[in-house]
Amino acid sequence: MDYTEKAVRHVNTYGGIIVDVDVDMVKLPNGAVTMREVVHHPGGVCIAAVDEAGLVSMVRQYRYPFQTHLWELPAGKLEPGEEPFPAAKRELSEETGLEAENWQLLGQIYTSPGFSTETLYIYLATGLHQGAAHPDPNEFLDVEKWPMDTLLSRIATGEIRDAKTVVGGLRAASAMGTI
Amino acid sequence: MDYTEKAVRHVNTYGGIIVDVDVDMVKLPNGAVTMREVVHHPGGVCIAAVDEAGLVSMVRQYRYPFQTHLWELPAGKLEPGEEPFPAAKRELSEETGLEAENWQLLGQIYTSPGFSTETLYIYLATGLHQGAAHPDPNEFLDVEKWPMDTLLSRIATGEIRDAKTVVGGLRAASAMGTI
Repeated sequence: MDYTEKAVRHVNTYGGIIVDVDVDMVKLPNGAVTMREVVHHPGGVCIAAVDEAGLVSMVRQYRYPFQTHLWELPAGKLEPGEEPFPAAKRELSEETGLEAENWQLLGQIYTSPGFSTETLYIYLATGLHQGAAHPDPNEFLDVEKWPMDTLLSRIATGEIRDAKTVVGGLRAASAMGTI
Repeated sequence: MDYTEKAVRHVNTYGGIIVDVDVDMVKLPNGAVTMREVVHHPGGVCIAAVDEAGLVSMVRQYRYPFQTHLWELPAGKLEPGEEPFPAAKRELSEETGLEAENWQLLGQIYTSPGFSTETLYIYLATGLHQGAAHPDPNEFLDVEKWPMDTLLSRIATGEIRDAKTVVGGLRAASAMGTI
């Protein structure tokens, strides 16, 4: 059924650090009025950086919502006004020190389209040169390079559960002909 | 680096419809105190229901955060106190009318572990029997059955961007030996 939902009234608003939340009243095709809660997120980037030996750079950090450390592909939020491609170059350099000659956009994902505007741009970076990492002083990252097969195996077993890392790992392997 | 972040103070709280948001002050390994914003979500389920002809059930609905309709695998949030497996059976039946003889948990994903607690349980459902769909009266769903190859192709082209549908489609195809 084709229709659109337009806000007839804003009910509540929360302004946060990463996200803002709006609650809007919208009219449905059956005439009913319901509430739609939207978590506004600036969007972000995720990078599968694969070197000539087929090793992919992974970062491990503490994820407060799950009270545990997770291994993920390098990633980060867009700064205000920042485009995805420069953000991807910036995040890869900050977190791993890597610069890449070749960049390929593997696609976009909507992480939770039912309630969140978050869109992630996933890149494949190859032709890598190692420089110095320069993470945010309040970021505590471990960096490792994994064989692509190790990443794919840990995705298959469920050890890797981060959505962007699952999608980025599978898409990068597909783009490189590994699977 | 192994450490944990514990809240030293709660700064702000938002109580919403789908999500609640907490802002906590936490102490970092370098002694600095920073804020962690956490979107609390009840979690949910996502179902790749594949029939004997290799057709996968897809649902299309209006996604207010993106102001557009999206095709996705059937999915839904956990009700309070509900376990993932009964939720998967309930959601598949509500949205498509299908009941399944065989269920396989394909894995869990964390949709946005940097700021959200949302965990989705992804199931493969086979041995399908068609009953009557009974969606929520305020849900307006279109249902179609797609060849698995069509789903995989639309994931590869980027037409399908919903993270759970990308992961569920790829994992279901892998589990069934399609890819």
